[in-house]
Amino acid sequence: MSEAQRLNAVIQAHAPAAGALMSGLGRRMWFPNGVPAQAREARNCPINATIGQVTDGSGGAVPLPVMAEAVPHLPPESVFLYAPQGGVRQLKSAWRDQMMSRAPTRAGLPVVTCGLTHGLSMVADLFVDVDTEVLLPAPCWGNYRHLFGVRREALLRPYKVVGDHGFQVDSLRATLASCSGPALLVLNLPSNPVGYSPTLAEADAIVDVIANSPVPLVVLCDDAYHGMIWEDGLLPHSLFHRLSHLDPARVMAIKVDGATKELFFFGGRVGFVTVGVEGEAADALQAKLLGLARSSVSTVSTASQHLVLQALQSPDTESQRLALLDNLRSRYRRFKQGLDRAGLRYLPFNSAFFTLIKVSRPPHDVRRAMLADGVGVVAVPDAGAVRVSYASVADDQIDGLVDALARHAR
Amino acid sequence: MSEAQRLNAVIQAHAPAAGALMSGLGRRMWFPNGVPAQAREARNCPINATIGQVTDGSGGAVPLPVMAEAVPHLPPESVFLYAPQGGVRQLKSAWRDQMMSRAPTRAGLPVVTCGLTHGLSMVADLFVDVDTEVLLPAPCWGNYRHLFGVRREALLRPYKVVGDHGFQVDSLRATLASCSGPALLVLNLPSNPVGYSPTLAEADAIVDVIANSPVPLVVLCDDAYHGMIWEDGLLPHSLFHRLSHLDPARVMAIKVDGATKELFFFGGRVGFVTVGVEGEAADALQAKLLGLARSSVSTVSTASQHLVLQALQSPDTESQRLALLDNLRSRYRRFKQGLDRAGLRYLPFNSAFFTLIKVSRPPHDVRRAMLADGVGVVAVPDAGAVRVSYASVADDQIDGLVDALARHAR
Repeated sequence: MSEAQRLNAVIQAHAPAAGALMSGLGRRMWFPNGVPAQAREARNCPINATIGQVTDGSGGAVPLPVMAEAVPHLPPESVFLYAPQGGVRQLKSAWRDQMMSRAPTRAGLPVVTCGLTHGLSMVADLFVDVDTEVLLPAPCWGNYRHLFGVRREALLRPYKVVGDHGFQVDSLRATLASCSGPALLVLNLPSNPVGYSPTLAEADAIVDVIANSPVPLVVLCDDAYHGMIWEDGLLPHSLFHRLSHLDPARVMAIKVDGATKELFFFGGRVGFVTVGVEGEAADALQAKLLGLARSSVSTVSTASQHLVLQALQSPDTESQRLALLDNLRSRYRRFKQGLDRAGLRYLPFNSAFFTLIKVSRPPHDVRRAMLADGVGVVAVPDAGAVRVSYASVADDQIDGLVDALARHAR
Repeated sequence: MSEAQRLNAVIQAHAPAAGALMSGLGRRMWFPNGVPAQAREARNCPINATIGQVTDGSGGAVPLPVMAEAVPHLPPESVFLYAPQGGVRQLKSAWRDQMMSRAPTRAGLPVVTCGLTHGLSMVADLFVDVDTEVLLPAPCWGNYRHLFGVRREALLRPYKVVGDHGFQVDSLRATLASCSGPALLVLNLPSNPVGYSPTLAEADAIVDVIANSPVPLVVLCDDAYHGMIWEDGLLPHSLFHRLSHLDPARVMAIKVDGATKELFFFGGRVGFVTVGVEGEAADALQAKLLGLARSSVSTVSTASQHLVLQALQSPDTESQRLALLDNLRSRYRRFKQGLDRAGLRYLPFNSAFFTLIKVSRPPHDVRRAMLADGVGVVAVPDAGAVRVSYASVADDQIDGLVDALARHAR
């Protein structure tokens, strides 16, 4: 039995919903006993001639001084040497600890990815084959269609996220009912581009629908905007925590999140994939993910990982993060009040960075007209709307933004 | 005609060898007019509400102070905000200028990748389908088998890199003659794990064999170890330059390289993919690569890109780089002399970081025995050898390394 087959058998036995959905690529994958694995075994050797990187012979980095001088406060080893496959160990633990502190959860250790997109792409590789049914929120982040549709040739099944009366649980239920076999369900809450988070009652209803899905599911929780919640009474944390306790024969949850938005480190490219199972099944799925990472990017920026680790370890981070969230919340309030005053139509929004403003002309026409006025927004033709990211606009620009929308989008 | 079809037609017309090999995924791919494309159009707008990142409203970053304090010498925008899709513009130009200064070349602007592995993976996505013939050097970096074999299900066709009398041009010619259709040829010179670079005469012979290939070829030049040459009379630069001038109906060259080894920035994850064609065909292939990057990692670490750009712009870099190369060359000499004194058998090596030492017992047995002596090396069972990375061993450890090899590997 090959190592890949051994992993498949473990997954089938202990995470049957995941086993049912696994793609051909997922089934073939394992983490090879190559240079990184052999280097790990040699990491305590006085003479370590395993890895093809230049060191001082004692594990110290030997960077070009012109580069090292630019980052004097970081140890050269935290910038210039390879990070371990799957990520810096303390970073993975610290990220997991933070996640586990929010709610009781069944979960493995995360695998570090090159931003959230890389995490989503690895999940697609692991579970999506030609014609696999993938349930996407509608409207959704456009790159989902490239990730799941163009790259993996999934059958995309849209479900409506939000209507005038909140989350469309009925649409999710009906879309699940139309599935012909094991499927991947993508949840993106808070959502992009809508900027919607469910209420606690809506969250209960979503979990109920998933628990009673007629087909086995892998539920991908894209938690990019975790914590960016601007109103009271909304679901404060990911549904991943609750989904991880469902029957593994029917549902496996998998969480993709990262420092990109949660720690305002857009340029860092540090994401995480965490499987909602424990023990042997978690180990086997992690081995699959490590093999996928090895064959797509190998490792993730060492400096970025250490910057995130520093932030997770600093006692000042939480207050700084809350101050930034307060700032965003005040942008949100001012923007929403402006929209209401101007009588603009929008989909319900209460979180994340965006809202969708309904337009009566073709969205790209509205976008171009606004560009000519010096205001950049994104056209979302599928939704007959433009997406407005109030998070990247200063307080004193918000009235001008609303005025421009009132001129062109009404 | 869809945008993907338009790109395919351009590639077919102007880079027929590339068109002949393109994979199904490659044919489906394009760079969508989504958020990044619309954000680019809005980059000069006084009010820019396109991208989902937090700024001060004037393009300035708003990082957490705990993270910004760790990198005080880099502008926050060069660390915390998204880099453009495909890479920082000045970085791409600077990398291309350096490459073009080495030899006359037909080439497009590079696309920045998350390390060289990501570049190799994108080339595999673009050109390799199930049963596409991929010619790999033997022995080769183990991850090639994961990248091309496990991930893309290629038919792997090994050709022998080096024998006791240097580069095995006959093996390359014979392997090409056995191909049944358009194929991908991977050249990795200087080579990992052998540590071999061809002489000038051998380089001529390789180009001649490729120019007379019986099947159309895409030639992937994996130039990870460019410039790491320890003897005189060897090919100083990549074969990419010469291959870019061959008949595009028969051959397209594509270059994967990066700062990982060339600038000793192992942890940075900055690589480049450059196509060996110009004009419309280069634009079309870049659009395919941008679509593949968008749907695999989105963007690459902003800080890493700016550190590489700084190095390329500094007048001190070249002397610092040469000093480090001198240091590596002295490790190489001392190691090689030690091997000869000890009567150890190795494959010819003259460049990069490694050599393969022939062993008469199973390589993993030798590796484990050496581990017990506190010396880490990598087993390469296919070659009946252990790979020794003298680049990561200090001068004063080299005699101990040779002694351990003499005890276990002879």
